[in-house]
Amino acid sequence: MTQFPLRSILVPEEGQRAIGALLAGARLDIEIVLGADAEPLASPYAVIAFDPGPVINRFADAAWVHVAGAGTDKIEAAMEFTPPLMTRTLGELGAQIAEYVLGYVLQRSQRMAARAQAQARAEWSKDATQPRYLNGQRAVIFGTGAIAQEIALRLTQFGVIVDGASRSGNAVTPFRQVVRATDWRALEPETVDIVVLALPNRPGTKGLIGHEILSAFRGAQLINIGRGEVLNERALIDALAAGEISEAALDVFATEPLPASSPLWSHPHVKVTPHVSGLTRPEDTVDAFLAALDALERGETPPLLVNPGAGY
Amino acid sequence: MTQFPLRSILVPEEGQRAIGALLAGARLDIEIVLGADAEPLASPYAVIAFDPGPVINRFADAAWVHVAGAGTDKIEAAMEFTPPLMTRTLGELGAQIAEYVLGYVLQRSQRMAARAQAQARAEWSKDATQPRYLNGQRAVIFGTGAIAQEIALRLTQFGVIVDGASRSGNAVTPFRQVVRATDWRALEPETVDIVVLALPNRPGTKGLIGHEILSAFRGAQLINIGRGEVLNERALIDALAAGEISEAALDVFATEPLPASSPLWSHPHVKVTPHVSGLTRPEDTVDAFLAALDALERGETPPLLVNPGAGY
Repeated sequence: MTQFPLRSILVPEEGQRAIGALLAGARLDIEIVLGADAEPLASPYAVIAFDPGPVINRFADAAWVHVAGAGTDKIEAAMEFTPPLMTRTLGELGAQIAEYVLGYVLQRSQRMAARAQAQARAEWSKDATQPRYLNGQRAVIFGTGAIAQEIALRLTQFGVIVDGASRSGNAVTPFRQVVRATDWRALEPETVDIVVLALPNRPGTKGLIGHEILSAFRGAQLINIGRGEVLNERALIDALAAGEISEAALDVFATEPLPASSPLWSHPHVKVTPHVSGLTRPEDTVDAFLAALDALERGETPPLLVNPGAGY
Repeated sequence: MTQFPLRSILVPEEGQRAIGALLAGARLDIEIVLGADAEPLASPYAVIAFDPGPVINRFADAAWVHVAGAGTDKIEAAMEFTPPLMTRTLGELGAQIAEYVLGYVLQRSQRMAARAQAQARAEWSKDATQPRYLNGQRAVIFGTGAIAQEIALRLTQFGVIVDGASRSGNAVTPFRQVVRATDWRALEPETVDIVVLALPNRPGTKGLIGHEILSAFRGAQLINIGRGEVLNERALIDALAAGEISEAALDVFATEPLPASSPLWSHPHVKVTPHVSGLTRPEDTVDAFLAALDALERGETPPLLVNPGAGY
C-alpha cells in the first residue's frame, strides 16, 4: 500500500484545475502541482485525473491514482501501468442520476407529450391525458451498484417493484430480487414497464443489451445512464421500429459527443441528453480524495477502491 | 348518527354506475338502486354521488351522503339540506397527485424543454442542459391535508426542504415547519423554488393566491392541484409576464373545462392539464364507502367524515 505521508498531488488536466485549488486550501502540508507538463516535485505522490488520455503514462511511478469521476473505464484503457492504489469518486451521482431517471419515467407515465398536444389544440381531453400511475409498475435495473441502488430506492418509494440483474446475482437492498445478468429471462421481461441500464463498461457488458434483450422487454421504456458501449444502438433503433421498446431516454452513447449523423438525434421516441444525468463536481472529487487520504493516514482501507478491469 | 342496518344505497349519477355494480357484488344484503329517477325502496338509505347538481335535493331524507371524490365543495354547494352523516373518498389521490407534482417539478429541474431544443438541433450542449438538482431546493405547499402530506413526503425524499402554510398553522409531518396562511411572509418566499397549491375551495381560500403572494415567490414554479378557485388566474398571467412566477403547471381552473378563450392554453410557460392529476376510481369510492359502513356497523366513527363548509 501507499507510503505515507503523501508528499505531493498532481492534477494534470487543465479542466480539473478547480480540484487543485480546493485541495490547496484543504491540505497546506501537501504540495499541489497543476498541469500535465509539470513533474511532481516530491514523492510519494498521487495523481487525480478524469480522462487524461495517454499522458497518464508519464506518471507510472505514482503511488496512487484517484479517478475524478465514477467510471474508470476510460482512464484504465489509457493506463499502461498498474498503480499500487486506485480510488474513484462517487459524490452525489446516485441521487443526481435518480432524479434524471425519475424525471423521464414520470414524463412518460404522466403522458406529457399527449398533454402538450392536447394543450396546443386547447382541448380539454381527459381520456388522452390520464396518467398511468407508477404505483405497481415493474422496473428492471441492469447493474446493482451504488448508483443503481439509489435509482431503485427512488422508484421503490413511488411504489414501483424493482428487480435487478448483475454479474453476481447477489441480493442487494432495496431490490426485490437480483438475478445474474445471464438469467434475465427469469425476470418475466414481458411484464416489465421500465428498463434502466446502470452498467459499467467492461468486456462482459459491451453490447450486452442487444436485440435479444430489447425484444423481450416488450413495450418497456429504456433508460441508459451507465455507459453507451453497453447498448447496441443499432439494435435499439430496430427495437423501436418494431414497437418492442416503446421509448428511450439515453444519456450515454458509444461515441460521445453523439455524432450529428446518428439517427438517434431525430428519433421521435428517443430523448437524447449529452451525458448530464450525473455531474461530478470538483468538491465531490476533493471530498472523495480527502476521505481516502484520511483512511490511509489512519492505516485503514480507503472507501471506493477501484476493482481493476471492472470499470468502477 | 345513522340508523343501522342500512337498507338501501342510491347511486343517482349515470357516470357512477360502476360504483353500483361493485357494491352489488360486495353487499348482497343491501339493495342497490341506480339512476336519479329511481326512488330508494327502503329506508334508511345512503346516497353516493360525485357532482350530481340539484338532483341531490330529491334525497333530502337520506341518512348518509357519501361523496365519491375527495373535494366536497361542488356537492355541498348544490345541497339544500344537511344529512345526518357525510363522508368522502380519498383513495390513492395523495400518491397519484404526488406523481403529478414530482413529474412537473422534475421536468423543470431536468430542463427538459432546453434539452428538447438542443436535441432538435442535434446539438451536444452540456451547459444548456445540465439539471438543477432537487436536493437542497425549497418548496412551500399551501395546504397541509392528506394530499399535501403525500406531496411533501415525496419532495422530501428528493432532498427538497418543504414548508407548509395552512389555516391553523399546526405542525404536520413531514413538513419542516407550518405557518398560518396569513403568515406566509415568514417562509422567506424570495428563496422558494416550488410553490404547490393543495387547498380546498372555501370562502377563506377563494382567490387567496393573487398578486401579492405570486409576486413575493419570485422565480418560483407554481403548481395547482387543489381547486382552481383558489388561484387568481389574471394575477398569475400578470406574474408570468413580470417574470415573478417562472412557470406554472395547472391541473384545476376556476371554470372547468377551461374555456377555449383562456390565455392559459397558449401561454408558453404554462402547462394546462384537464383535472387529471388524481383520479378517484370506482373501486376507491366503494372501498371508502365500505370502510365507513364497516365502522358504523361496529358503532365507531367512520374515517373521512366531512367537515361541513371546509370543502373536504
